[in-house]
Amino acid sequence: MKPLINDWLANDLAHNWHPFMQMKDFETYPPKRIIRSEGIRLFSEDTWYYDTISSWWCNILGHRHPALVQAMVDQLDRLDHIMFGNFTHDGAIELSKKLVEITPNGLNHVYYSDNGSTAIEVAIKMSLNYWHNLNQSKKTAMVSFSGSYHGDTIGAMSVSGVAQFNSVFKPLMTPSICLPNPSNNESAAIQALHDYLKTHADQVAAVVVEPLLMGAGGMQVTTPNFFKEVRQLTQQFNVHLISDEVATGFGRLGSMFASQMANVTPDFLCLSKALTNGQLPLAVTLLTSDIYHAFYADFDDNKTFYHGHTFTANPLGCAVANETLAVLDSIDWTSNVNHLHVKLSAEFHELCDRFRFLSNPRAIGAVAAVDVTSTTHRALFKLSQLAFDYHLTIRPIGQSIYLYLPIVTTSEECDDILDRLNQCLTYAEQMILF
Amino acid sequence: MKPLINDWLANDLAHNWHPFMQMKDFETYPPKRIIRSEGIRLFSEDTWYYDTISSWWCNILGHRHPALVQAMVDQLDRLDHIMFGNFTHDGAIELSKKLVEITPNGLNHVYYSDNGSTAIEVAIKMSLNYWHNLNQSKKTAMVSFSGSYHGDTIGAMSVSGVAQFNSVFKPLMTPSICLPNPSNNESAAIQALHDYLKTHADQVAAVVVEPLLMGAGGMQVTTPNFFKEVRQLTQQFNVHLISDEVATGFGRLGSMFASQMANVTPDFLCLSKALTNGQLPLAVTLLTSDIYHAFYADFDDNKTFYHGHTFTANPLGCAVANETLAVLDSIDWTSNVNHLHVKLSAEFHELCDRFRFLSNPRAIGAVAAVDVTSTTHRALFKLSQLAFDYHLTIRPIGQSIYLYLPIVTTSEECDDILDRLNQCLTYAEQMILF
Repeated sequence: MKPLINDWLANDLAHNWHPFMQMKDFETYPPKRIIRSEGIRLFSEDTWYYDTISSWWCNILGHRHPALVQAMVDQLDRLDHIMFGNFTHDGAIELSKKLVEITPNGLNHVYYSDNGSTAIEVAIKMSLNYWHNLNQSKKTAMVSFSGSYHGDTIGAMSVSGVAQFNSVFKPLMTPSICLPNPSNNESAAIQALHDYLKTHADQVAAVVVEPLLMGAGGMQVTTPNFFKEVRQLTQQFNVHLISDEVATGFGRLGSMFASQMANVTPDFLCLSKALTNGQLPLAVTLLTSDIYHAFYADFDDNKTFYHGHTFTANPLGCAVANETLAVLDSIDWTSNVNHLHVKLSAEFHELCDRFRFLSNPRAIGAVAAVDVTSTTHRALFKLSQLAFDYHLTIRPIGQSIYLYLPIVTTSEECDDILDRLNQCLTYAEQMILF
Repeated sequence: MKPLINDWLANDLAHNWHPFMQMKDFETYPPKRIIRSEGIRLFSEDTWYYDTISSWWCNILGHRHPALVQAMVDQLDRLDHIMFGNFTHDGAIELSKKLVEITPNGLNHVYYSDNGSTAIEVAIKMSLNYWHNLNQSKKTAMVSFSGSYHGDTIGAMSVSGVAQFNSVFKPLMTPSICLPNPSNNESAAIQALHDYLKTHADQVAAVVVEPLLMGAGGMQVTTPNFFKEVRQLTQQFNVHLISDEVATGFGRLGSMFASQMANVTPDFLCLSKALTNGQLPLAVTLLTSDIYHAFYADFDDNKTFYHGHTFTANPLGCAVANETLAVLDSIDWTSNVNHLHVKLSAEFHELCDRFRFLSNPRAIGAVAAVDVTSTTHRALFKLSQLAFDYHLTIRPIGQSIYLYLPIVTTSEECDDILDRLNQCLTYAEQMILF
């Protein structure tokens, strides 16, 4: 054990810039120092919190799952990290084989990177490069939907439609086409996509979509049919479909992947977060044989894809990912997510009856959200801070609050979480937060 | 132990797309399957290789260093991963404090991300946002030098000047200014920077530089004086200096950081790779208090920096980074790198006398490179494959081959590596590769 730092708070605020935070807010609400994690609970020195948003949507099996810890310890006994250029290793071979098996038919090849943003960057660059290799160099434009979010690197940000995150950075962003938000009106979004592709398909490389659940754009649910129609249009007009399941993959929505709920095979499937049960950075971009073979050629044909990161296919990440998939195979997570879903859906509807400032309840799999009407200054932020007193982790997105539960959350834990949420909202109402 | 996959090669080639590789080349030269690593050696089932390029420049202390393994095992016993939004943890507090101590004076704040590309993206976005927060929204342009390389995400790529890697992706890239290659003529590059800033500084956010060693652009060495002059010009014309020490940081060049060899404090310092001794993906962008305070404000002032990744400040990554810095403190790596440098420099000069196809020997710290003249088709690629028979890992860059040794490489290992390189080049000459 290392000696604990005496003045942890002073040192944290002196040196650590926390992501997505106005650091000045910590003067009023200091950061919580977590010293231990176990199951779906995070422990500080004197209290604990439910990990009710799965550590930014990445944890599915709880923290420090014994099988996953053991897999990492075993891997440390053999191979830590090597470059994935000329070399390969069993962990990546096993993981890719398994990912190809469990993802929609037709996705046969795996490109590794480190996080959701880079998985999207790989798909965007590969799509453009595909058309270039096919002598269709005019097909460079990326199309996305308002309200979608695909990451924070400049390429990923350029296909995201959440103004709060990217408006300042417009001068850096690559031109892309942002269509109307499907969560407001799916038919209008489909019509807009149809109209755009009809006139511009010869300039479009790919359409990027978060299927079924648009996360950072406000936890908005879309239908499988919307995704299916996007697939039909992209096929009809010969452009790629990039499916971003970084947040929705690995059981969170009730199926292994959202694509399967819509019976869609995209051209690219981007995964990260729960791929390692949220323990270590690892991401993959799966793609079809058609795409793969557009790059497979004699070296002198200049069709090589130039992209890579130092930690591509990191063996420790692959080891924990393989074990995550093995654990998923060994438990009945589908029934559990369905069970959680029934509870969450019913309760979030009831919350809206109970509290006049809540509306638009929605739920999909182990995720549920409501919109919050507030007139008080920064009411949702204050609510999120208040929630810590009720052992809940709530980070509002836009005007919504949500739960995003690990898929192994037990029925009793779910009841307890919903009970605490009720108490927290009741107190917030009494405090005239809303 | 997991069962080994029977047909590893078939499965690898069926599913894994290796980075920066033309996959068809594997038909002739199959990938090497590495099953174990130890010290500076990588082991396959029936042979082994020196990790002579430090697993893409990230390993400094050798593989599976016992102290680092123990640090990860200990961390797994406490805390795996939490979101770094509202939460903090001792590993990140300790690491940031230490990084602020060992980097140039004035860099007081730490922003975490996952790899070198994202560390650069953070710096680029933060620089632009800084000027925006200061009501100088016209300052958006990024300036870089031809031959420099800063990563593969679209933002990082846009400030890179290695045509082989990014020419296809031009339609996606954000506009940036690429000045002449300093490794050809430093005065000309400085003059070009001066002239550009003199007329355009009001539109420039930042200049991005790889100090002292331009890696992917061909292992080209530049002088500390060049970096010092870039710093002077950026100060004179009021633009930021982003120093990319992702590859050069943590002792490789003989000092802890290249910035210190030039006595320069940049506005942003990007680090990754050896930060964790190349075990796990982790990156940081360090920055000055001036920059930090341009964002520190009441929330309603809209000065918050919106950027983040799920695995920001991953506790497992922080644990191994802290232990990497502790090991560096406990050994005399400076003397060892100086010793390696003398050997490498002398031997690379002798290689050029010995082999008519080698020229332009150069060395800095534990890195040495030569240019190769070849008329045979893909001679350097064939040489790199031949090198495996001599237990060496050689990946040519452009028309150069290089060694990029872990800083703990012993004198005997270095002699053995140089001896094998000599033998390999002698055989290559006999084979009429050159």
